[in-house]
Amino acid sequence: MLQYCFGIDIGGTTIKCGLFQTDGCLLEKWEIPTRIEEQGINILPDAAKAVLDKCKERNISLEEVAGVGVGVPGPVNHKGEVPCAVNLHWAYVDVAGDMEKYMGLQAKAGNDANVAALGEAWKGAAEGAKNVVLATLGTGVGGGIIVDGKIVAGAHGAGGEIGHANIKHEETQACNCGNCGCLEQYASATGLVRLAKEQLEADSEESVLRMGELTAKAVFDAYKDKDVLAIRIVERFAEYLGGALSIFSSVVDPEVIVLGGGVSKAGQALIDCVEKYYRKYAFTACKETPIVLAELGNDAGIYGAAKLVLEE
Amino acid sequence: MLQYCFGIDIGGTTIKCGLFQTDGCLLEKWEIPTRIEEQGINILPDAAKAVLDKCKERNISLEEVAGVGVGVPGPVNHKGEVPCAVNLHWAYVDVAGDMEKYMGLQAKAGNDANVAALGEAWKGAAEGAKNVVLATLGTGVGGGIIVDGKIVAGAHGAGGEIGHANIKHEETQACNCGNCGCLEQYASATGLVRLAKEQLEADSEESVLRMGELTAKAVFDAYKDKDVLAIRIVERFAEYLGGALSIFSSVVDPEVIVLGGGVSKAGQALIDCVEKYYRKYAFTACKETPIVLAELGNDAGIYGAAKLVLEE
Repeated sequence: MLQYCFGIDIGGTTIKCGLFQTDGCLLEKWEIPTRIEEQGINILPDAAKAVLDKCKERNISLEEVAGVGVGVPGPVNHKGEVPCAVNLHWAYVDVAGDMEKYMGLQAKAGNDANVAALGEAWKGAAEGAKNVVLATLGTGVGGGIIVDGKIVAGAHGAGGEIGHANIKHEETQACNCGNCGCLEQYASATGLVRLAKEQLEADSEESVLRMGELTAKAVFDAYKDKDVLAIRIVERFAEYLGGALSIFSSVVDPEVIVLGGGVSKAGQALIDCVEKYYRKYAFTACKETPIVLAELGNDAGIYGAAKLVLEE
Repeated sequence: MLQYCFGIDIGGTTIKCGLFQTDGCLLEKWEIPTRIEEQGINILPDAAKAVLDKCKERNISLEEVAGVGVGVPGPVNHKGEVPCAVNLHWAYVDVAGDMEKYMGLQAKAGNDANVAALGEAWKGAAEGAKNVVLATLGTGVGGGIIVDGKIVAGAHGAGGEIGHANIKHEETQACNCGNCGCLEQYASATGLVRLAKEQLEADSEESVLRMGELTAKAVFDAYKDKDVLAIRIVERFAEYLGGALSIFSSVVDPEVIVLGGGVSKAGQALIDCVEKYYRKYAFTACKETPIVLAELGNDAGIYGAAKLVLEE
């Protein structure tokens, strides 16, 4: 009987591992280091060993394991192949094929941001929803689109790359991707700090933000304390993000929009402000789409990866 | 044996009907008038009768018919129900359910723009593609998103409502939907004429467009004749449209983008100009996504409707 599955979330520093029951109950999670030396040649063998060791430790026979899902920080095609993953020092790797070979278990692979969206749709903030947009607001802006309960990986593995939606043609500063005007230049933690610096320079208003380190958290803390300058900054940030989310809704019309990543620690204040601009710009039919905070935090990846192997 | 299927495309003036083989070969197409009087109560019975009459005429037994798909100018949920369709004078209609009742055949329903996208993905410009974005540039801008070979209908039937993607927050004129800054305010035939009027007023350049009727066709004709003013107008139009398409690609990353509707009669000149801006703004992985002209014209709806009943 297929009672168990594993979710593996490969990051540049650690590999997060989760042992799940197939009903979605997380039995145990643990981490191992990501060995990126030698073109990351040890990463998948290490992950496979972690799975097999855990099975042995818990007396789980491989016949009881539905499979192993793997989230990877890079584009992943529908066969589970990765053309390259810069942070892992990988050129082409057949993640699903190699993992199956190393373990003798079914394996699937997906992009880490997409897999996180699947996790939130399975057991997190969007539990039960079949159509979800997730935006992960961290150093950059990642995203994942779920349609009909499945990840939209896209023709080039770029489905859900909403951080690189070009929303401001007039922008002159370049994004890491080389284009100018990407959503993540405004709606990431880095983008928020950039907006803050601009505002501090252009605006003579007194502000607590003129002292101390300028971080996304500092901006939102000042916003919550009704600092006038912080309010101007967060309103700009929220208009970019809420406006972009309204465009994504006109494409896939999700049941729910989930905001995750470090910036989402700002909590309900973030939701309220983004929601205001989302509602302003969204098409009538989508104006009431709920915007909610992600719930699984750093575990979203292992949840979603595990879910990959439970799909038909 | 299920050898045949029907595609019905209900418009405000005529109902287009198609008899297909299940392999996608169109055997015959015809039209009947749309009787919108009495809250459009006769529309579905008329369509059902058209199907049953055709079966009788051709000696097709109902056992040979896989089903009947119906495209409707309004939102359609996954059960084939329509909450309202203004152009048909409909309030709530259970299109799929009613058609099944009237015919004794399996019936499915979809939004007309979505169904047209499915048609192009089945037997048109995107034949064989599983992931497609279609933009229909007519009086307004309609759209359809195909993911994994299926229509993305969305949680509120607003999937593919890309004409109402809000791309210009500074816009002060209102779209028909009530918002300001929707894509269709710039990228429809009407939008192109609006841009032309603005340009003619703001610009002192000589132009053939200062004489005669100002239509989308006239603008593109002048553009092809290298009229300087027309070039400025079309470049603006193409920047709005190409830029918006690049955002849609960052969401669903299609294999191909299809442009249809009246404006697409401008042909390759349209593609070339839109492509230029699409490539400028698109995320690296999606920059080479082909943009092509729709091929099925007014038949896209009956093709896509027929395909609805062939899906699992």
